Parts: sequence; structure tokens; C-alpha cells
Amino acid sequence: MITKNQIKYIKDLSQKSFRTQEKKFVVEGEKLLIELLQSEVTIDTIYALPTWADANPNVAVTIISEKELSRISQLKSPNKVLAVVYTFEDEIGDDLSNGLTLFLDRINDPGNFGTIIRMADWFGVNKIVCTSKSVDVYNSKVIQSSMGSVYRIPVFYVEPDTFFSQYKSQFPENAIIGAAMDGETLAEVNLPENGLLVMGSESHGISEEIESHVTKSVTIPNLGQAESLNVAVATGIILWEWRRG
Amino acid sequence: MITKNQIKYIKDLSQKSFRTQEKKFVVEGEKLLIELLQSEVTIDTIYALPTWADANPNVAVTIISEKELSRISQLKSPNKVLAVVYTFEDEIGDDLSNGLTLFLDRINDPGNFGTIIRMADWFGVNKIVCTSKSVDVYNSKVIQSSMGSVYRIPVFYVEPDTFFSQYKSQFPENAIIGAAMDGETLAEVNLPENGLLVMGSESHGISEEIESHVTKSVTIPNLGQAESLNVAVATGIILWEWRRG
Repeated sequence: MITKNQIKYIKDLSQKSFRTQEKKFVVEGEKLLIELLQSEVTIDTIYALPTWADANPNVAVTIISEKELSRISQLKSPNKVLAVVYTFEDEIGDDLSNGLTLFLDRINDPGNFGTIIRMADWFGVNKIVCTSKSVDVYNSKVIQSSMGSVYRIPVFYVEPDTFFSQYKSQFPENAIIGAAMDGETLAEVNLPENGLLVMGSESHGISEEIESHVTKSVTIPNLGQAESLNVAVATGIILWEWRRG
Repeated sequence: MITKNQIKYIKDLSQKSFRTQEKKFVVEGEKLLIELLQSEVTIDTIYALPTWADANPNVAVTIISEKELSRISQLKSPNKVLAVVYTFEDEIGDDLSNGLTLFLDRINDPGNFGTIIRMADWFGVNKIVCTSKSVDVYNSKVIQSSMGSVYRIPVFYVEPDTFFSQYKSQFPENAIIGAAMDGETLAEVNLPENGLLVMGSESHGISEEIESHVTKSVTIPNLGQAESLNVAVATGIILWEWRRG
């Protein structure tokens, strides 16, 4: 049973401003709930159909009907369970950890953003840093397409100049690699163990402001006629190359 | 001006069975229309807003209103122009051309399928071959996410046993590489110039029937905790590795 106020509250969480104010977001579906329950994320409330509740007797839930689930779900085909969850810590702090870090500039497509988080999790990226011009990490499509990796890979929104100057002063030896159409051929670039990979938008590339911080531009050569590569695919290829050994 | 019958006809083209019967499909939006007009694809009718028609005076169009466009469009935000187009030749024939070929088994997500077509076009893949369990190439989301590459990369639907026996008899020396969770590490595999790359579904991998034709399985090592890689990203990484030289 769910109240009208709860329904309104959950629906309002589809808006970024309300998520920011309430410090909560929505996670949906069986697969993501399994990962959620294994994570350290703080759960507010889980709303579930009786079948899901029966199959998960140790999880505290509010039981709802299919009709109620379809009212609060943002999915076309609502999937048994929905959780309201607290957002994570979102301050990068003064002490950046070293490793392989991803910087995303103006990545607006939530599906691509979620896929990039999932891939960062595959390749052992330590964190993702974004400008405020990238999509909100708590957008439901980002959460869905990250397939649970969003619980493991911290995503920070930063003011770029401050971040880059802090990064360069802490790790003066690290490469800051940017993907571009006119850079060095990726296979020929020497990629040291630690560093920062900067990816820009598919249509507009890396913005000038961010470009000025890049120490080397790399290119995935075009052997055919496509105008561009999907940004998630391009990120995956560069991360692979960085870690292929 | 568009008639009720035309509206119904275009809307019915969102169904695979009707597309197959009529041998036509729908292409939408300015960017895809530019690529369409540069391609050798046969156009049936272009429906356009007056602004698009004015900007493209040499293109024969049926002028429609915004309201009419929104009735025939499958996009959330209809974009000025929509074309009804003839499907391409869809028989692979007896004489397979050599090169780098992609075989897709059960790729059901239209966005991933379109992204893979676009990437095949980037890496110079000569054609894509699929089982009938993959999504229809004329699905509007496939067309949109292929970004025009669908006009350049032929996609064939085949009966797998027939195809593989024909492929092996024509190119007995070629590698048939399959992506798997337990194969050889990708960076250590010797990938000859020509061959076939087999990609299965994200959730279920390559089906047993197809697996039996694979001569070598390769794996992209998991350096983190994600359960799987997006299939379009995995395809991109293997194609990159194949062509990185």
C-alpha cells in the first residue's frame, strides 16, 4: 500500500532539482536491486510486488500492487521492485587518489553515460570526474544502463579549472590524454600506468576550456566512412588500449 | 498535405511484417536525410516541413505541417523531415567477399545494433551477417543509431549452418573469432587480416549452435567488478584490436 503523497514524492524524484534537494534517487528492477542490496548504499524504502517480497523474505519492503508500481515506475515495463535510495557523497575532496581516472566533458546522453560508468568498472578506473554540463548521474536511465556499476565507481561533478590545477599539482608526472579527431594514433602513444583520460561530446568534442589542460591528444584511426564513433565505444577502446599491457 | 491512408501506411511501417511485405522503411531527421541523399538508396517519398523544403530546393518533397509530421513520426521530438525508403538487397549470395566480417547472434537491442553498424563502418568491416534472432535492421531505432552507416554496411540475415559451411569452404584459412568470457586474452591472440568476428548477446553469449563454428574464443580481461561489458563496446574493442596493427 502506497499513499498519494508517496507516489507524488517518487514521481518528483525524476527531476534533478528534487533529487538534489532530497538527496535521494530511484533504482528499479530485480537485477539492479540485487546489486543494490550487496552495495553500501543507504536505502530509504523498497516498494515491491508480493512475488518479489516472497522471494526476498529477509528484505524489508512496502508491498504494492502492479497498478501502484506502474504509477511510480519510470520504465515502460515496470519490473517487480523499485527502491528510493540516498545519493552518495559527492565532494571530491582535496586528496585525489592516483590511478586511472576518467574526465567526461558534456556527455549528455544518459545511456552513453551509464555505459561508460559500467565500462569504467570493468577496466578498473578509480573514479569519474565531470563538468556540470554532463548528465546527472542519478538520472534513471544512467542508473539503469550502468547496471549496478554506479554503486562502485564514484562520480564527481567539479569546477574544471580548480580540478585540473589540483590534479596537476598532486600528480605532475601523469599524462592527461584527450580523445580528438586530429591527435596521435592511439596505438603509437605511450600510456603510463596512471593518468587522466578526457572524453568530450560526440558532436562537439572536448571544449576549449578543458582542451587547454590536455597534455596529449589521441585518435582512433577511421578506416571506413562513418563520421564519428559512439563516445561510449571510443572510451572503451582507449581504456582497453591503456590497460592492454 | 498528407492523406489519411498515407499516414496509416507510414505508421504501419513501424511493424517488421509490414516493412517486409512492402519492402520499405522509414528514415527520419535532417542528419540522416543528408546521408540518405548522398547514398544509393532508392527513395519513395520525402515528407518535409516547409523550412526543410525551402532549405533543400532541389529535393522533391511532399510538404506537411508540424502536426502532420508528429502524426507520422516515431521520434519523441520529430525533426523536420521523414522519408519512406526502399529496403536494400538482402540476399548474401553464393560468393562471399573476403575481408573483416561481423557475425551477430541474438543482438536484440536496436540501439546497440545501430551502434555496431556505425562502428563496423568506422573500422572498415565489409558486411554484417546475423541470425534471424537479431533485431530487424530496418527498425527505426537501428536506423537512427546507425547514423547513416546503414546505407554503407550491408546487413544480411542468414541460416547459420549454411552460411558457416559456405564461409569455411571459401575461406578455409580464415579465423572465426568468437567473444567469450573464458577465451584467450584478446591482446595475446594473433588476428590475421581477414576473418569473421562472432558476437553473442550480452546476457547469454554466443549460442551453442553458433559456438561450434568458432575456431578461437577471445576475452577482454575484467580488471574491475562489472559483470559484463556492453556488447557494442566489446565489439568496438575487438575490432580496434583486430585493426590496430
